[in-house]
Amino acid sequence: MPDIDPWGDIQVGAYKEKMERFGIDAFDDQLDKLPTKNRYMRRDIIYGHRDFGRVADAIANGDDFAMMTGLMPSGKFHFGHKMVADQIKYYQELGADVYVAVADIESYTTRNIPHEKAREIAIDQYLLNYIALGIDPENLTFYFQSDGSTSYHTKSKFFSKNTTQNEIEAIYGDITPGKVTAALTQVADILQPQFEENGGPKPTVVPIGTDQDPHMRFTRDIAARTDVQDFIKPSSTYHKFMRGLQGGKMSSSKEKSYIALSDPIDEAKQKIDQAKTGGKQSLEKHRKQGADVDEDMVYELLAFHLIEDDDRLNRIYREYDSGEMLSGELKQIAKDELETFLQTHQEKREQARDRLDAYRDL
Amino acid sequence: MPDIDPWGDIQVGAYKEKMERFGIDAFDDQLDKLPTKNRYMRRDIIYGHRDFGRVADAIANGDDFAMMTGLMPSGKFHFGHKMVADQIKYYQELGADVYVAVADIESYTTRNIPHEKAREIAIDQYLLNYIALGIDPENLTFYFQSDGSTSYHTKSKFFSKNTTQNEIEAIYGDITPGKVTAALTQVADILQPQFEENGGPKPTVVPIGTDQDPHMRFTRDIAARTDVQDFIKPSSTYHKFMRGLQGGKMSSSKEKSYIALSDPIDEAKQKIDQAKTGGKQSLEKHRKQGADVDEDMVYELLAFHLIEDDDRLNRIYREYDSGEMLSGELKQIAKDELETFLQTHQEKREQARDRLDAYRDL
Repeated sequence: MPDIDPWGDIQVGAYKEKMERFGIDAFDDQLDKLPTKNRYMRRDIIYGHRDFGRVADAIANGDDFAMMTGLMPSGKFHFGHKMVADQIKYYQELGADVYVAVADIESYTTRNIPHEKAREIAIDQYLLNYIALGIDPENLTFYFQSDGSTSYHTKSKFFSKNTTQNEIEAIYGDITPGKVTAALTQVADILQPQFEENGGPKPTVVPIGTDQDPHMRFTRDIAARTDVQDFIKPSSTYHKFMRGLQGGKMSSSKEKSYIALSDPIDEAKQKIDQAKTGGKQSLEKHRKQGADVDEDMVYELLAFHLIEDDDRLNRIYREYDSGEMLSGELKQIAKDELETFLQTHQEKREQARDRLDAYRDL
Repeated sequence: MPDIDPWGDIQVGAYKEKMERFGIDAFDDQLDKLPTKNRYMRRDIIYGHRDFGRVADAIANGDDFAMMTGLMPSGKFHFGHKMVADQIKYYQELGADVYVAVADIESYTTRNIPHEKAREIAIDQYLLNYIALGIDPENLTFYFQSDGSTSYHTKSKFFSKNTTQNEIEAIYGDITPGKVTAALTQVADILQPQFEENGGPKPTVVPIGTDQDPHMRFTRDIAARTDVQDFIKPSSTYHKFMRGLQGGKMSSSKEKSYIALSDPIDEAKQKIDQAKTGGKQSLEKHRKQGADVDEDMVYELLAFHLIEDDDRLNRIYREYDSGEMLSGELKQIAKDELETFLQTHQEKREQARDRLDAYRDL
């Protein structure tokens, strides 16, 4: 059981309600099965799952399993994206077959992003940062939908027999042929680790936010309905999202809502200075009532990314919550940690750069 | 100009109306450009076209051009299918790049035909008879949609950006994800001869019936809208359909409506005996009024397939039309010609059989 909850009752309440509505199970009953637990697991950031048990069993028994994720290439790689990258690394180290789909067909058909542009962003932003974060590119199927095999595309087309317009509309809202195509291609992405040519049926985990659950349910239903081959219904874990630095949603289109891993260190620190905190208006009030930690975006950054040590994070939580620590002091901790992290990361990124060429000519 | 019209005013009237409604041009103004004219062209069975001029020009100038057709594998190969096969042969002899798509994705997603079954029918029925009819399989891209290349499938998915639900609904009626997938895959089939890897843009002719015109218009519109690569809008020719032997529609599900090229000769001749004729009820009436040639299914078979010599067909038409020739005599001509044709064809088919193995393991 996680012993701290950086979001307080309100946010947890919203997630709990969603879990009940969608039939998602709490993740904490899975924790003890795992040989190692990542930061997100320990801190209840990964809060729910569907059929994760079969993945945990495969890990425990040394059986084949896969981890699959996708990315929609747009904008700079920021701390919101790092959360998925950290999970790739975690499952890769546990021995998973890791698949990362670059959704360049979807970004073209539903957002009109030229696929050459999508390819550039995927390599220069995502893949580069993955490698710098310690993901082994040799041990990873990082692919573009538009490069998919005959089997991959044919199966995604065959899957169209097993669904309806209404079902796709429930996922994507107003339906277009581009969205139908994107939905079916994504089903092939999620099931690809289980294709016969990739070793056949195996437990597969897809880490997602709750908003992506309709995609998972859709894929699970098709996996059960199709006669193309046998599949094990893929599993999913559900994580909370980091909010933007100013509060509200983190978004690639709002520069100040995120810190990109390529931001110059001074600019990144400035964003922390300008972030929304949970500090009180007066020193007196702050000392007396303590900070509103759940509404502090700097603390959120520490908890999601910058402090690995649970005891240390706990101490900070208590000191800030009690009013002993001020927002300025919390920000100073974050700026110091961020500087250390970005410095190391940016060096590693430069070292990783020459490993990218192989992916450009794909 | 064709000097006989085996269908009379009623059928021609219906086709003429469709031509005007859809903006299809009369084929006869194209005839003089062609170095050779096939039976269907000479007899106004191919009656209309869209942009065929650029194909005729390419033929005249010795430029690259392509001929494309597709088949939905079901049932036995009959004289209705032979009409398309004869056109494949005609264009192949004129130097076209010939593409034949087996629509096994479409037959799976819209008709629930297992693709293994589709493959078997395509090879054992269609391809075998193609070869026996004189089509050179070495000089032909005969492919299954489910074997299509990455480029083929990716392009068909990219095309989804350039259409709407309404447009696909206008072609296929009530829309399903399976029909959306089939429609877009067919666009890739028709444009494939022009893919960069296949030599780039070139005039392409697709011989179809008027009922398939919506597919052509759809493909032509997408060819003009897409930014995937440049395409020349594909051309089409329009042919009349041979009716069933009993009158009405020829259909694979009605055994007596067609003669399969694998039918035993006795059975085939029996079907002619039982066919609907244009003969009059009494000998006296027949001699006086002549036959209703346009409503004679045996004559239709002669005109479409069994008599190559125009003068001979003309003589038969005049004799039958005047009442000089009786239905029984017409049937005897047809049975004799059919026996000769089937005997030769069935021998050639047996010789062709060992050339099929290469296609089974594709």
